[in-house]
Amino acid sequence: MKIGRVLRDGPDGPVPRLVSVHPETGTVLDLAAEERRRLIDAGASPRRAVRLAAAQFPGSLTEALESGPAFREAADRVLRDADPALGIPLSEVRWLAPVDPPVLRDFNAFKNHEATAPDVWFEVPLFFKINPSTIVGPGERIVWPAGCEHLDYELELGLVIGSPARDLTPQTARTALFGVTVFDDFSARNLLRHEMEGRLGPAKGKDFSTALGPWVVTVDELDLTDLTMTAYVNGEEWSRGNSGSLVWSIEEILSYASRSEPLVPGEVIGTGTVAGGSGWELGRRLEPGDTVRLEIDGVGRLENTVGAPDPVRWQPTPRKRAGAGR
Amino acid sequence: MKIGRVLRDGPDGPVPRLVSVHPETGTVLDLAAEERRRLIDAGASPRRAVRLAAAQFPGSLTEALESGPAFREAADRVLRDADPALGIPLSEVRWLAPVDPPVLRDFNAFKNHEATAPDVWFEVPLFFKINPSTIVGPGERIVWPAGCEHLDYELELGLVIGSPARDLTPQTARTALFGVTVFDDFSARNLLRHEMEGRLGPAKGKDFSTALGPWVVTVDELDLTDLTMTAYVNGEEWSRGNSGSLVWSIEEILSYASRSEPLVPGEVIGTGTVAGGSGWELGRRLEPGDTVRLEIDGVGRLENTVGAPDPVRWQPTPRKRAGAGR
Repeated sequence: MKIGRVLRDGPDGPVPRLVSVHPETGTVLDLAAEERRRLIDAGASPRRAVRLAAAQFPGSLTEALESGPAFREAADRVLRDADPALGIPLSEVRWLAPVDPPVLRDFNAFKNHEATAPDVWFEVPLFFKINPSTIVGPGERIVWPAGCEHLDYELELGLVIGSPARDLTPQTARTALFGVTVFDDFSARNLLRHEMEGRLGPAKGKDFSTALGPWVVTVDELDLTDLTMTAYVNGEEWSRGNSGSLVWSIEEILSYASRSEPLVPGEVIGTGTVAGGSGWELGRRLEPGDTVRLEIDGVGRLENTVGAPDPVRWQPTPRKRAGAGR
Repeated sequence: MKIGRVLRDGPDGPVPRLVSVHPETGTVLDLAAEERRRLIDAGASPRRAVRLAAAQFPGSLTEALESGPAFREAADRVLRDADPALGIPLSEVRWLAPVDPPVLRDFNAFKNHEATAPDVWFEVPLFFKINPSTIVGPGERIVWPAGCEHLDYELELGLVIGSPARDLTPQTARTALFGVTVFDDFSARNLLRHEMEGRLGPAKGKDFSTALGPWVVTVDELDLTDLTMTAYVNGEEWSRGNSGSLVWSIEEILSYASRSEPLVPGEVIGTGTVAGGSGWELGRRLEPGDTVRLEIDGVGRLENTVGAPDPVRWQPTPRKRAGAGR
């Protein structure tokens, strides 16, 4: 199953709606609308059918996944009765990021920059966190953050958590996984280089636009150990890799992420960049106006255009060290 | 105004409720219950009054703050009519963390460890992010994470964002701030030391329990540049500092946090540890069962007890570097 989120017009303006995606018919089905019809056909009053359908299929994938297995069961029930060919044509869809994660992490689980990598990269699967308020969806413009002189993409697989979990092991880890999506971890290289000297990790170098989409594909549809991953800039192939080259497996990522810490439904975990999956590793840079398209076979294509640089509206005044005379 | 969150019993089990806190009468007022009464007195039907009151005062402070100025206005209206002396005695209250932030950041804005600090600490106000799923409230037990050999507290001021903002400057920054709370950034020192060598910042060393509370005090009640901050372990004073010793001001913290990136209602930003505000800086360590009480004058007291160590249920197998023969 492929689940996306789209905007649809209503009396109070556009509202987010969950859809199932059907590339074979070139359509999406609005799950709440289909559920409403199904309930009315089964004898519900139109008013109650709207309420029940909205509770079953809210506009938030996180809320839907918080329903537990009931969400997938309800979606399966809708799809047994509905005809995808009668859905909304893909050409008319206004996409949102398919997920609205309460937590957004990014691991470092592929082989990259090996010669200069610190020892700890080989000892545990490291990760950092990204501000989920900066997530953008398919087609949305990427912020070029203030002070950035070198914007880059990163080609990653995004893991979408379906069930609450804690202290997973590689044997149990897959139970927590709902599906995957394409994850473009846009990065401001010069900001990162500067702030990472402070040992507190990425902040302004990552927290401006993380692109996710176009939809989430459930794990039953894919072999996660063999997905071809490619990146195109203005239509030219820049990066090509495969999810099979992970140094830390998906099961190890989920186990480490959940060690003494909860995983919650709807949260998203990036694998880190596949080898060669960024401009930095190729000695190439993005420019304002460039279009970046990431593709993962069996998952989908995520395309975003880079915006104009944000002006520097305020710059901190450096402090002196006490007694350092600098 | 002081706003907290408490658990109250209902037919479906305990539910979170927003309260105003009245230390002078030793009570809290359940804001939705008071609003319901006010609406009924003004002629609303009991059923509609419940619905309207629940919409005005949800159990989430983030949702309440998303109402904009309407939230504070509604709370002021309730408090004009209500008698705090008739509220729920503090002794009967089951506290929750007062906030449920969608984003949790922590800055490094006090003077600490100056001799070994990297240059970048003096050039920009650095921050990292904490997993908000690990927040605990007053009285809740602190997780001792798997592999931790050195657990510590950090005495900090927590800034609670009230309004959406972006690209603030020190001149405009205060408009985004709703209030403050006590912020105990529990830290696993040995895990931090190890993972921070990887330059991706704190992860397992911070993401297990961050304590917030006991309530949020609105900024109109306080002089944020002169708050005495103290930490007690098992009743003994370990740390004492003052918010006036910030190297980066609250206005600078908010400006930097919002640079090319949104601030959203309900998010919480820690200042970082006041000088001498952790056991590490004093050469002292917490033990399982210790009680840590942080106090900020005019804000409140936040007390938590340290739990027993989590067992190591799974440990990653270190990888070899390609060709390194190690």
